[in-house]
Amino acid sequence: MDKLYVIKIGGNIIDDEAKLSSFLQSFAAIKEKKILVHGGGKMATRLAEAMGIQQQIVEGRRITDAETLKIVTMVYAGFINKNIVAQLQANHCNAIGLSGADGNVILAHKRISALDYGFVGDIDLVNTTVLDTLLQIIDAVVLAPITHDGKGQLLNTNADTIAQEVAKAMFQSYDVNLIYSFEKSGVLLDADDDTTVIGQINPSSYQRLKSEGKIFAGMIPKLDNSFAALNSGVKKVIIGKAEELNGLIEGTKGTTINNQL
Amino acid sequence: MDKLYVIKIGGNIIDDEAKLSSFLQSFAAIKEKKILVHGGGKMATRLAEAMGIQQQIVEGRRITDAETLKIVTMVYAGFINKNIVAQLQANHCNAIGLSGADGNVILAHKRISALDYGFVGDIDLVNTTVLDTLLQIIDAVVLAPITHDGKGQLLNTNADTIAQEVAKAMFQSYDVNLIYSFEKSGVLLDADDDTTVIGQINPSSYQRLKSEGKIFAGMIPKLDNSFAALNSGVKKVIIGKAEELNGLIEGTKGTTINNQL
Repeated sequence: MDKLYVIKIGGNIIDDEAKLSSFLQSFAAIKEKKILVHGGGKMATRLAEAMGIQQQIVEGRRITDAETLKIVTMVYAGFINKNIVAQLQANHCNAIGLSGADGNVILAHKRISALDYGFVGDIDLVNTTVLDTLLQIIDAVVLAPITHDGKGQLLNTNADTIAQEVAKAMFQSYDVNLIYSFEKSGVLLDADDDTTVIGQINPSSYQRLKSEGKIFAGMIPKLDNSFAALNSGVKKVIIGKAEELNGLIEGTKGTTINNQL
Repeated sequence: MDKLYVIKIGGNIIDDEAKLSSFLQSFAAIKEKKILVHGGGKMATRLAEAMGIQQQIVEGRRITDAETLKIVTMVYAGFINKNIVAQLQANHCNAIGLSGADGNVILAHKRISALDYGFVGDIDLVNTTVLDTLLQIIDAVVLAPITHDGKGQLLNTNADTIAQEVAKAMFQSYDVNLIYSFEKSGVLLDADDDTTVIGQINPSSYQRLKSEGKIFAGMIPKLDNSFAALNSGVKKVIIGKAEELNGLIEGTKGTTINNQL
């Protein structure tokens, strides 16, 4: 089976022109098939401020009202997605940038919960046929964190979850490697010390580290998602620094999550 | 040869939610292969105003400075393109929305002229291979009027020109029908009277009408482009009202431009 890299790039890297450019150079150089999922960065917040649109934060979560949806659609699916694609083209990587509405690649529904998140999507389906065909004819697919409900409504959707669901959906056609790249060197024993990377985490060490309070709270959803992905057929999950993408792929950098007990 | 419709939709329709929705319903119902090219509408101008960005107009033409390029990328390739795609999906038309950077479908260069237009692109190449393959696997391609130079630079590009160049490029694989749809019923003898549609225009009647001053100045570039497209192998060019798309396709509405003397 062909190898497929599904790589999520975090918002902090997107906000840093030099880091993003260097990351995209490394990404373009990957010889295997590849899907890049990007987050948002601070541009959406800055644009909302410039336009005088109040951000609603409830219980620490940003609510996507109609005006915010407009902004994230413009910034994520427009500005960020197209600039990433243009830069990849400049690096001789023929990329195609999509939202989940394009080719119906990611179908979602508006989140149902006690707290009204607004226009936030929970994923129902990843259309592997379209993604697969695109990967046959071009070098990379770049996914913006915007999905749709099939009834004309666009929805703001978590980029980590998109990466995870796409990786899970593609495992039947590819050996999928899922990489979460961000500003830290990996899962750290000391969140403030970038040299304390945990090289390998398996289910038992994860339980132990969690019970000892050694896993930074913000990392727990990423790790839970990683194990869920492995349980669904994804071959390998790696978490690490965007600037070290080559090392993450070679297995010399970052944290590798594996499912062996 | 299969028929291919390349349909340009003007900005005035995009600004009108009800008209756009009805247009997209008709577009989705077209059974043949189809490419939709959309213009911008007033949203970009409104957004620039909301953000306090001065629009530079020189000799009647909007200059695309760096800030304006950001805005048109967000609005055209983000908001408008993705909302059109989501609405087409709701009408059971599996559409994929692209800028010219995606799949390298439209390569352009920054316009060279005495007047510095800023980040405005003149088209060098339409990548028919990618468009053709996409049309095999999905129902429609939706093109935003943003191209790239292959070196990482996005460029603002006239949507009429994109429609024309795409139509011209695709003529070897398809019987191409190019439709310019906008707010008027066609080419009019009296610009203020929508009942004075000229049903057919050929090169000799065009010369006569122009010399008699009967062609509204704003229509001349569209007609010149139409004849250029016909000379390059496009089968038929039709100009007419977006709300009458069915009639334009059936040949019962609008102005048909043909090349017979």
